[in-house]
Amino acid sequence: MSSETAFISALRNLASSTAARGLMDDAAVLTVGGANLVLTMDTVVESVHFLPDDPAQDVAWKLVAVNASDLSAKGASPLGCLYSHALGEDAWDTAFLEGLAEACRHFALPLLGGDTVRMPEGAPRSFSLTALGQGPEGTPPPARTMARPGDIVWVSGTIGDSGLGLDILLGTQMASGPGAQWLKARYRRPMPLTPLGPALAPYVHAMMDVSDGLLVDLSRLATASNVGARIDLDAMPLSSPYAAVAGTSREARLKAACAGDDYVLLFTAPAQNTSDIEAIAKATGGAVRALGTIGHHAGLRLTCEGTDIPLPAHLGYEH
Amino acid sequence: MSSETAFISALRNLASSTAARGLMDDAAVLTVGGANLVLTMDTVVESVHFLPDDPAQDVAWKLVAVNASDLSAKGASPLGCLYSHALGEDAWDTAFLEGLAEACRHFALPLLGGDTVRMPEGAPRSFSLTALGQGPEGTPPPARTMARPGDIVWVSGTIGDSGLGLDILLGTQMASGPGAQWLKARYRRPMPLTPLGPALAPYVHAMMDVSDGLLVDLSRLATASNVGARIDLDAMPLSSPYAAVAGTSREARLKAACAGDDYVLLFTAPAQNTSDIEAIAKATGGAVRALGTIGHHAGLRLTCEGTDIPLPAHLGYEH
Repeated sequence: MSSETAFISALRNLASSTAARGLMDDAAVLTVGGANLVLTMDTVVESVHFLPDDPAQDVAWKLVAVNASDLSAKGASPLGCLYSHALGEDAWDTAFLEGLAEACRHFALPLLGGDTVRMPEGAPRSFSLTALGQGPEGTPPPARTMARPGDIVWVSGTIGDSGLGLDILLGTQMASGPGAQWLKARYRRPMPLTPLGPALAPYVHAMMDVSDGLLVDLSRLATASNVGARIDLDAMPLSSPYAAVAGTSREARLKAACAGDDYVLLFTAPAQNTSDIEAIAKATGGAVRALGTIGHHAGLRLTCEGTDIPLPAHLGYEH
Repeated sequence: MSSETAFISALRNLASSTAARGLMDDAAVLTVGGANLVLTMDTVVESVHFLPDDPAQDVAWKLVAVNASDLSAKGASPLGCLYSHALGEDAWDTAFLEGLAEACRHFALPLLGGDTVRMPEGAPRSFSLTALGQGPEGTPPPARTMARPGDIVWVSGTIGDSGLGLDILLGTQMASGPGAQWLKARYRRPMPLTPLGPALAPYVHAMMDVSDGLLVDLSRLATASNVGARIDLDAMPLSSPYAAVAGTSREARLKAACAGDDYVLLFTAPAQNTSDIEAIAKATGGAVRALGTIGHHAGLRLTCEGTDIPLPAHLGYEH
């Protein structure tokens, strides 16, 4: 067990309130004045969560987007955010605020408060944001624990784009042209379709956002729900730019299924809700794809072209 | 105008929601499900907000205490907190969690969620915490803007202890023995009497916590309320250890009035509420002291031994 795993385990012992959901979900859920308040907090650190030469506006955008995605995955409508800024160079900080303003408007998360702090010379940039949302009425915010055998496994949007964009930015994948630009933008400016989560919430059992990779996140969802999942690699939704750069081979689909930073929704729902789910996706301008089913067995099973295939050694970003 | 002031001014433009209170108050106030939700977020950075050799448990304690103090100053009862941890050495991190657990219990702020992040090698430690509380029922959480001419100016607890403790830790003030230990502990483990704020809220007009220095914080309160304040330096509440180390001269009182990190309450209230306020302080185990009055004039006026004295050049920690 790594020291980080041990630390998080110690944190879980500390977070014994039911509102904390055992620190196993995308967000905390607190009942206040009869409303379900959904709370999430993320920190991004230079050279860890973003590249030192990423545009400041994009770093701010990403900070807001990842938190907005967590709220959406719990079916919550955005209320606002608090954010803590580590002061650095004026020009960079000013550009950061531009991106923050744009993202707060886009994701309907007005800035409510926070803190600005001076950093010692040479410290890496780091920023924290807490986002608040109001959960669905009359139904608990969908947790990772709520998948049931017989459910269909769904994903919204396309997967793998951001991961491939990062590869292009890092130079480990060669690509140019508008498609490559679009893929890089998916890494720097994730675009979660946040109205989708609240609209889907009444029709789903379990829901979460895909941040570390579809396979690793689905395996976490299955474990949390004490069920298994079988999904079909042929059903992976790939974007045209992804297909143009990486192809559509089994390896390309597997790579997409293990890539991080997608910020799309992964959810399970009873089969009878299929037409509602498809209608909602259409109405919010999104696309959803059925990937497979939830079963009584434990763990994740993967099929491709009609036969079972082994799981890759790394399902995504794991810690 | 410093670049930091310009940055904070740009942030204020961004925080146009009424819930943000213009980023001029200790906390944001958001109405959710009929309840007043009070929200505050603070970040502490090594070598900026705490000393590199401060015990890890005390750093965690301080992080929770300063946020709990902000909630109390808005009359809010604690609901919980989210916190972001920058991972460092295992032993230090484990000790930090001990202090965090102790402080979360003491201040009734259960851990609800947050984030843990890896930091690049050599980065200073930094930690952010967002605390949530439920504001008083039937009355808006007391803001800095609500002082009215004729109000009495009050402070809870004693002032200057933490600042003097820091001087002793830094070696700029020589002192030893139990009194010096107590003063150092006031810097490292602030002890805001948090039940006092919610109990006082129905009886006060303006309220805030003293974090940057009594004089500078009172001048901010007066400016925010568009009033002036006259206070008596002879009324400064000094602790016995403070008096034993620094004395009780005019200079010693002025030093206490400009010291930071007190985390006591500063509030104004109509004269007819005096007996209620004294009774509440007694019931919650605290002490309150009347320092002066709010007037129609602008700015701060200081008296000592019956005569007006000039304000010091620096009223406290200003940014």
